[in-house]
Amino acid sequence: MRIDIITIHPQLLESPFQHSILKRAIQKGVVEVNLVNLRDYSTYKQKQVDDYAFGGGAGMVLMIEPIANCINHLKKERSYDEILYTSPDGELLEQKACNYFSTLKNIIVLCGHYKGIDERVRQHLITKEISIGNYVLSGGELAAAVLCDGIIRLIPGVLNDETSALTDSFQDNLIAPPVYTRPQEYNGWGVPDVLMSGHSANIEKWRHEQSIERTQQRRPDLLK
Amino acid sequence: MRIDIITIHPQLLESPFQHSILKRAIQKGVVEVNLVNLRDYSTYKQKQVDDYAFGGGAGMVLMIEPIANCINHLKKERSYDEILYTSPDGELLEQKACNYFSTLKNIIVLCGHYKGIDERVRQHLITKEISIGNYVLSGGELAAAVLCDGIIRLIPGVLNDETSALTDSFQDNLIAPPVYTRPQEYNGWGVPDVLMSGHSANIEKWRHEQSIERTQQRRPDLLK
Repeated sequence: MRIDIITIHPQLLESPFQHSILKRAIQKGVVEVNLVNLRDYSTYKQKQVDDYAFGGGAGMVLMIEPIANCINHLKKERSYDEILYTSPDGELLEQKACNYFSTLKNIIVLCGHYKGIDERVRQHLITKEISIGNYVLSGGELAAAVLCDGIIRLIPGVLNDETSALTDSFQDNLIAPPVYTRPQEYNGWGVPDVLMSGHSANIEKWRHEQSIERTQQRRPDLLK
Repeated sequence: MRIDIITIHPQLLESPFQHSILKRAIQKGVVEVNLVNLRDYSTYKQKQVDDYAFGGGAGMVLMIEPIANCINHLKKERSYDEILYTSPDGELLEQKACNYFSTLKNIIVLCGHYKGIDERVRQHLITKEISIGNYVLSGGELAAAVLCDGIIRLIPGVLNDETSALTDSFQDNLIAPPVYTRPQEYNGWGVPDVLMSGHSANIEKWRHEQSIERTQQRRPDLLK
């Protein structure tokens, strides 16, 4: 899989892709992540990529021209399955969408910009608008990083047994059961007896019950 | 405001805080962000901080001891208003929670770990569990970065007029209206006439109507 992330802050996104699971996925060659600096596609001498909104109001708006130039340049090199745009008013990201995106070959992620981008980009150049949640961020870069992380970890070969996605929260619409590790007692706080029993069937039964109970308590919406 | 982020991957979080609005907020002294390496609080020679789950199963679980040591160390220096934990089964982050967190003085954000942390940490050491959305990430670090970004940008003095939070999506439960900037025509695609009219009252009216219409189309849940 190849992901091209178009941003005015490529350096902001460097460290998340240089550590832990994303780093390993890139090193294994399972995914290629390409940070594209939108300013490289500006037609202005000062590398300007935004301008004031028509009709007035505070805040700068990303212009369509550099974005179109950038996307067209990338599309000449290969075809893309999706051109995503991160924005708080996009479609709310859910696990199912991550599953789908992880099956694609080439995607572009255009990072949202604080006061927005020219509406014509959204109407004509983007295939899907994605929101990672009901809150506003200072830019779309962290949303793009979250989106990429949620996708990349699902690509076969990225996770090993230890980190397998099979027992994830959400994959079966149930929250994962509580987990405990050493020491067995800390500060007077113990561990449920069943987990120390060595009785696999009972442990599995307990975990499943806990999953259902936790989902009912915390996220009843997932059970609908 | 001071935010201490407890993580096993402090370097993963470096670049998001070194650019754009978060960098400026830190430089202005409005917020101090302290990346705390959990391994520094391990009592093991190898700096081990996780272990296998009691009762078996794939995946490592963060141990309570280093986390308790770390939190206790921080609490000796100052008192904390909230000790947050990022986890996909936490309370879904919403703009209102960001508003509240932005008014606090000192918070700790403990980054979730892939297969989870010892349940006793969640029961006894954490004040609130936060999920940034209904999807699973490879770790809690990017969720912590998103949470911090959503909070920090709301602290008075961080945003200027150009990036003011007053016209954000969600603050009034309405999605922001479409925006346009130069050029007025691109590839045959124009700009709504009203925005070029210079008639402020009509422009405001149009923007408000567009906000309501977009919210009805895209996020009817916000209007409830």
